Amino acid sequence: MKPNSDEKEPEQSNWAWPRKTWSFLSEVRRRSPLIQCITNFVSMDLMANTLLSAGASPAMLHTSDEIPDFTPHINALCINVGTLSSDWLPAMKLAAETASNLGKPWVLDPVAAGASVFRMNACLELLKLKPTVIRGNGSEIMALSKASVEPTKGVDSTHESTDAVESAKALAEATGAVVAVSGAVDIVTDGKLVVGAHNGVAMMQKITATGCSVTALIAAFVAVDQNHALEATASALSVFGIAGELGLRLANGPASLRMHLIDSLYGLDEAAVLSHVKITRF
Amino acid sequence: MKPNSDEKEPEQSNWAWPRKTWSFLSEVRRRSPLIQCITNFVSMDLMANTLLSAGASPAMLHTSDEIPDFTPHINALCINVGTLSSDWLPAMKLAAETASNLGKPWVLDPVAAGASVFRMNACLELLKLKPTVIRGNGSEIMALSKASVEPTKGVDSTHESTDAVESAKALAEATGAVVAVSGAVDIVTDGKLVVGAHNGVAMMQKITATGCSVTALIAAFVAVDQNHALEATASALSVFGIAGELGLRLANGPASLRMHLIDSLYGLDEAAVLSHVKITRF
Amino acid sequence: MKPNSDEKEPEQSNWAWPRKTWSFLSEVRRRSPLIQCITNFVSMDLMANTLLSAGASPAMLHTSDEIPDFTPHINALCINVGTLSSDWLPAMKLAAETASNLGKPWVLDPVAAGASVFRMNACLELLKLKPTVIRGNGSEIMALSKASVEPTKGVDSTHESTDAVESAKALAEATGAVVAVSGAVDIVTDGKLVVGAHNGVAMMQKITATGCSVTALIAAFVAVDQNHALEATASALSVFGIAGELGLRLANGPASLRMHLIDSLYGLDEAAVLSHVKITRF
Repeated sequence: MKPNSDEKEPEQSNWAWPRKTWSFLSEVRRRSPLIQCITNFVSMDLMANTLLSAGASPAMLHTSDEIPDFTPHINALCINVGTLSSDWLPAMKLAAETASNLGKPWVLDPVAAGASVFRMNACLELLKLKPTVIRGNGSEIMALSKASVEPTKGVDSTHESTDAVESAKALAEATGAVVAVSGAVDIVTDGKLVVGAHNGVAMMQKITATGCSVTALIAAFVAVDQNHALEATASALSVFGIAGELGLRLANGPASLRMHLIDSLYGLDEAAVLSHVKITRF
Repeated sequence: MKPNSDEKEPEQSNWAWPRKTWSFLSEVRRRSPLIQCITNFVSMDLMANTLLSAGASPAMLHTSDEIPDFTPHINALCINVGTLSSDWLPAMKLAAETASNLGKPWVLDPVAAGASVFRMNACLELLKLKPTVIRGNGSEIMALSKASVEPTKGVDSTHESTDAVESAKALAEATGAVVAVSGAVDIVTDGKLVVGAHNGVAMMQKITATGCSVTALIAAFVAVDQNHALEATASALSVFGIAGELGLRLANGPASLRMHLIDSLYGLDEAAVLSHVKITRF
Repeated sequence: MKPNSDEKEPEQSNWAWPRKTWSFLSEVRRRSPLIQCITNFVSMDLMANTLLSAGASPAMLHTSDEIPDFTPHINALCINVGTLSSDWLPAMKLAAETASNLGKPWVLDPVAAGASVFRMNACLELLKLKPTVIRGNGSEIMALSKASVEPTKGVDSTHESTDAVESAKALAEATGAVVAVSGAVDIVTDGKLVVGAHNGVAMMQKITATGCSVTALIAAFVAVDQNHALEATASALSVFGIAGELGLRLANGPASLRMHLIDSLYGLDEAAVLSHVKITRF
């Protein structure tokens, strides 16, 4: 069963987002998609644990020497430029190209895209390799959309996600990717349709690598139904947010929230998903 | 006192494994062996914390520039190819060679050995440098034993440890190393004798780097008595598994299990070890 | 308001350390200084989470390609040589030089300075670039002060901080930096004045990267008032130690201490700071 088996366009469907979201999570757990991550040093641990807790199988392989042998066997690829250096970029491009050529979905996390000319140029080169989804915070998506280089607040956003809606739409139109903007409300757009995922808690921003980790989760969700990348992306953002909401009930601060978030993601059942998903047209 | 001070061969001894295991852990706590780890980016944090919690002293030094000065002072070396790249391999080989030449034990974790020709060849080159112990999951040990390249499920095993017994024995005979295969039952063999360590819980597989970390723990145990590498290896696997069993009692999911596992490893006392160790001839 | 707005020299002030410490923490939370970290692979996660929990904004950018664009926008820099390699050193030097030239504070953590000639030489080159603060354990500061290489217990100290007071003073005089020595009592000196920060618990040494993380916290504190680097350093050490003390009340071992420490750092209020700070002239 495909998560979204009806033939209707999203615009025409009854927007049964909670069922759709549960269907994606169930499929990830059932199929355990193999997700290759070429990511930054800070996030590797939490990203791998996020994928494992969701039922996916993470593989952190990052060298050009291995990509021709390994990447053909993956179900989706996640590329994150958080601690980019010139010696990692060629492998990112080779992996993205390999995935694209093989029709496998891949997801780009343009961390701190505007922090330097080097990083912006790297992101622009990666964009040419046709990511399926791009997820960033408001500042990153706006910088990428304008292809502008304005060093801002490091990796933390100085823009709300809603400010970035027009930038996200423009970026989606220009690249053909689904674009997601994390914030108090997460925005997802394919350039025409815009949906908002309203789950999550503010304290998640006080935990490093939560953004990177939800991008990896998006890769896992897209892996099980790449023809519905917008729905997969919104569902992954919602699921991760719900895990944060449930985690916060038991947390006393960012470190215990991080632990309870992962435990909650692992334990999420149908009832919790159906009652918590809040995704709306925007 | 050496952990295993009797002169009898393991085959002839009374297999007092719980006492033996406690003796190894006590020695690690008493001597605090210095364990150099050249490992993957994902596992460094949990691996270092595992060693600290067990009473050992971790050192993550990974460049050829430092090995000639530093490696002569270590008590054991742990090499893990999880995020291997061509610029790290020479240092791994130099460290392994240095350790071998100085008669220091070293342990190899051939993560995802079959994922690429590059990785398999790297593992085969490392094997020539005479590891004291090799620990992997069933898929890794079978791939290494056949020196075959069959990309499988990334870093997660698609084979049970018991399927890999013959491969493990063959690998042990061919290399002179003790070979351990993690799984529902952990298998340890020197090519002739085969023992099974029955501790641990399934949820540990949902935590990234638990396999890497138990390999580091094996290095610490071998460091205090390298003449009994099979006993040290089985004991380390059992101790880590017990920490997982005790941790699971307090856990609500993989992230809290990870925390309680390390706490339990730190707090393990003689009574807990003696009552929980389950190691048997296979 | 500057944390220390009086004109009196520290020697002449009333040493109202608890108020001063609270003032630093409040300023970090209010201004959220951007802290660039070029650090080791083991500590990135805990260091970033420590900075976030304290209210600062971490940025792990480590390549020479980005430093000219990015480093001018930071508020302080933290350099840590824990997993040093020759390909990272030029960027460390470029970032330190850039920070120095722009009058921005930077903090050096000379992890395992005595582990190799390569590492010692790297530290000595970095010293020439005028760090604002140097923080290490007793063995590291003594090795650096003598510029001597004696591979000892890896990254763990074999000397108490109080043994290192004379070395710290000499190093401070030679470099112009404030020098901090972590230990049962943390020592801070500018070469003349010596203060001791008495907070913290022994179990923090069983958590990897706590030393690295407190160095990053020092960078955040110095960022909000670089003219009082000694006070900022002692305050950061005290705050981190208090978080450990409060964390220990809820902890069952090193892993839960790590979690509760970060939660406590995030939640620290004025009353807790005022009642717990123990900083004295030495």
